[in-house]
Amino acid sequence: MKIRDIAELVSGELIGDGDGDVEVERVAKLSTAANGELAFVDRADGDPASEASCVIVPMDLEIASQGNYIRVRNPKLAFTIAAKKLNSREPRYGESRPAIAGSADVRTVNIGNFVTVGEDSSIGEGCEIGDGVRIGRGVTVKENTLIYPNCVIYDGVEIGRGCVIHAGTVLGSDGFGYVRDENGEHLQFPQVGTLVIENNVEIGANCTIDRGSLGETRIGEGTKIDNLVHIAHNVEIGKRVLIAGQSGIAGSSTIGDDVVIAGQVGISDHVRIESGAVIGAKSVVFPNKVIKKGLWSGIPVQPMDEYKTQLAQVRGIGRLRESVKRIQKHLGLETSSTDDTER
Amino acid sequence: MKIRDIAELVSGELIGDGDGDVEVERVAKLSTAANGELAFVDRADGDPASEASCVIVPMDLEIASQGNYIRVRNPKLAFTIAAKKLNSREPRYGESRPAIAGSADVRTVNIGNFVTVGEDSSIGEGCEIGDGVRIGRGVTVKENTLIYPNCVIYDGVEIGRGCVIHAGTVLGSDGFGYVRDENGEHLQFPQVGTLVIENNVEIGANCTIDRGSLGETRIGEGTKIDNLVHIAHNVEIGKRVLIAGQSGIAGSSTIGDDVVIAGQVGISDHVRIESGAVIGAKSVVFPNKVIKKGLWSGIPVQPMDEYKTQLAQVRGIGRLRESVKRIQKHLGLETSSTDDTER
Amino acid sequence: MKIRDIAELVSGELIGDGDGDVEVERVAKLSTAANGELAFVDRADGDPASEASCVIVPMDLEIASQGNYIRVRNPKLAFTIAAKKLNSREPRYGESRPAIAGSADVRTVNIGNFVTVGEDSSIGEGCEIGDGVRIGRGVTVKENTLIYPNCVIYDGVEIGRGCVIHAGTVLGSDGFGYVRDENGEHLQFPQVGTLVIENNVEIGANCTIDRGSLGETRIGEGTKIDNLVHIAHNVEIGKRVLIAGQSGIAGSSTIGDDVVIAGQVGISDHVRIESGAVIGAKSVVFPNKVIKKGLWSGIPVQPMDEYKTQLAQVRGIGRLRESVKRIQKHLGLETSSTDDTER
Repeated sequence: MKIRDIAELVSGELIGDGDGDVEVERVAKLSTAANGELAFVDRADGDPASEASCVIVPMDLEIASQGNYIRVRNPKLAFTIAAKKLNSREPRYGESRPAIAGSADVRTVNIGNFVTVGEDSSIGEGCEIGDGVRIGRGVTVKENTLIYPNCVIYDGVEIGRGCVIHAGTVLGSDGFGYVRDENGEHLQFPQVGTLVIENNVEIGANCTIDRGSLGETRIGEGTKIDNLVHIAHNVEIGKRVLIAGQSGIAGSSTIGDDVVIAGQVGISDHVRIESGAVIGAKSVVFPNKVIKKGLWSGIPVQPMDEYKTQLAQVRGIGRLRESVKRIQKHLGLETSSTDDTER
Repeated sequence: MKIRDIAELVSGELIGDGDGDVEVERVAKLSTAANGELAFVDRADGDPASEASCVIVPMDLEIASQGNYIRVRNPKLAFTIAAKKLNSREPRYGESRPAIAGSADVRTVNIGNFVTVGEDSSIGEGCEIGDGVRIGRGVTVKENTLIYPNCVIYDGVEIGRGCVIHAGTVLGSDGFGYVRDENGEHLQFPQVGTLVIENNVEIGANCTIDRGSLGETRIGEGTKIDNLVHIAHNVEIGKRVLIAGQSGIAGSSTIGDDVVIAGQVGISDHVRIESGAVIGAKSVVFPNKVIKKGLWSGIPVQPMDEYKTQLAQVRGIGRLRESVKRIQKHLGLETSSTDDTER
Repeated sequence: MKIRDIAELVSGELIGDGDGDVEVERVAKLSTAANGELAFVDRADGDPASEASCVIVPMDLEIASQGNYIRVRNPKLAFTIAAKKLNSREPRYGESRPAIAGSADVRTVNIGNFVTVGEDSSIGEGCEIGDGVRIGRGVTVKENTLIYPNCVIYDGVEIGRGCVIHAGTVLGSDGFGYVRDENGEHLQFPQVGTLVIENNVEIGANCTIDRGSLGETRIGEGTKIDNLVHIAHNVEIGKRVLIAGQSGIAGSSTIGDDVVIAGQVGISDHVRIESGAVIGAKSVVFPNKVIKKGLWSGIPVQPMDEYKTQLAQVRGIGRLRESVKRIQKHLGLETSSTDDTER
């Protein structure tokens, strides 16, 4: 797609070198963008320098470096609109559709019934692929990995050696990221990154792990994940992490090594959990927080000893109120304003 | 089934016009019931007037209007028992079972391997149906909708144009509604309604959305739902709503337009969330509440500023207790009753 | 496998009768272990007497009874390592793989398309097995049970009569149990027990119920479970229990009869919920607690009336603080230490 046509599509102004005939093929994030790719800068104080063939920039950004730029009022929305055009989905199956694509490199015969494997995927020696597993295009599954029945692996996902994925788990689905257009409609921000599962990872049943939007989601070596866990786009999880059932980790958070996350925990977006931290059941970590090594619990999380003290203090409010009433009586003061707490 | 036989089945008394030979074929809710249908009224102050061929009513309800009625002590239980008889499930597959039923109207060739489509279903032009998707009977999928592998769409569900359903999601499963019989056993209340997904809805992986019990569950146009979200029977969701991962909405709640629900939120049953409300992560809305436009957070939810104030106040209980102890000392009063709060 | 080789594998010392040629075939828990099985004792005050062919014991345990023992520093880890060797997974599918094994005893023709049934499984009369259901080896499904499409039933699971399992649910997956080795890696503790679902149980869509690690997980007769519920290994659930959507029950907890668990509840491990208890939405029961009959709510749970009183008291902290400030003013005391609570 010519960048002149993109500028027109997003009602933007082509500036910089301004060669409208330059072609872009796909979108990427600015820091990793290469020739043939379209990137964007969201903030007026951002630095648009990159290897991208074209960068969408806000109106008030100063352009110092060379290159092709498209100026718009809402760069993220313009990027989303352009990405939608660039990524338009081709018909996938057509009339003839071998269940296991001819171009797939499948090195094990330990494959169940009704399995599908897409083009250019590879499955290593010693793997077991259960009945009804769906493996998309360009997926890599390394040696001795066991995938239980009815799992779905989206295009381009990489799974390491010796992993175990329990039944019904979905790996590499789109992240939950939207940009509002002028009519208030939610347009999907491009979810064209990938998901990398390192060696010896075990994942429970009916989990969902999203691919990166532009970059990648990554699960570190030896990490173990229980059932019904949700891991959002661009999350990075370290090595030997334990995540218990029904916990969820929102977009772009990073989890260090040897972290333990108990059941039904919620980690918000852009959180950093440092190595060795232990998060108690049902806790919540609010957005953008940094959680250091140690025991944490609560909504929102506190260090465990503070959490326990606070629980005891809350249980003691009734007695504290009684004390205040006795003081009020002792001093001959009105007690009504205290009394109405139980209304 | 003759209503005389229903009266006998539920040990009820046939009254009103009392024509025991009238036939009913299925159950319905009173407000929409038509000829050939059986409905019920649960409360003595209800109005049994309807188009139903027969209505099950409580002992103490006064019957003013014409029609056929069956008086019983527990109308909901009697209705449930009758519905079970009326809805008895026929064998579905039999010896011969084409994967795509001859009566299905499938207008796209973009269909994966090992897909099943039931009788009288229709799939519009431009749709993509991923490997292993199960589409029941009488399902409608409109144009250009994309259903990822291994989703299951139950009988009668309607899906609009341009929708995206991620892998492993189940649409139209039975709601969780039971009536106890005299032995304390739970009988399933009829779950014979449907599920309507309007245009441009996107739903994440491994979600579950139940059909209505008697009426419908509805997801409004342009609404976007993240992974592992649960939406119960008879919920109505407006347009352009965002629901983040692992949230759940219980039966018969209504959500207005442009509402934002963060992750791991619980909305109880019969709640009304008004348009423009934003509910923070892990919050709970208790049953029958009405939530107005604005920011809300907490268990149970409060307006966001009250929630933040309260969080700060709870953190300050320890200091408040110190103040009270200083006052007690100053006045020469006992402090023990305050001291034991940390036991 | 000879116990001499096991002793060598785990760097242990063979004691007791010390016949190194004795063979063990699999692991079991001590209380039920039989001839040919390997068990372990974890604590120095445990009683190693059993029918097992060999027991792994800690260094400081006194051996009074006869039998074969292997002394090690970390019995649970040694047992885990031995179990891994004993349970090594054979290739399952091979070149030829009939979708329905010849040795399976299938008594219904009401079976969908693309279903797989493993060796030595039996499916009773009147069952309906939906499209794409995966039934492992040695599974029993009794009469008139309905399994919706794309469910996955692992090896050895037993399902009773008249059950309903909604789409996408996974039954009998591995529990989430790990033992750390000397390098800090998590080794899976053996998950070789089973799952028993009694008669008339109904389970919603996309649930996960794990098998026992050594013993069994059991769901009692007439119990009803909503969507996206997670039940961990070795949980025992009584009769006529109701569990609403997105709740989770951690390992080895027991739930009595007629218990009601609302939505998004978390029950920790080794909890005992007694018959007739009702747990409110989003509540948490902390580990090892015993919950008696009655209404409970909160994080952690309290009796419902205490929970409501506490909610009111917390809402009243602001007024309590005002009272204390008035007393301080009245007495001419400093108020600053109270004032900073909202910082």
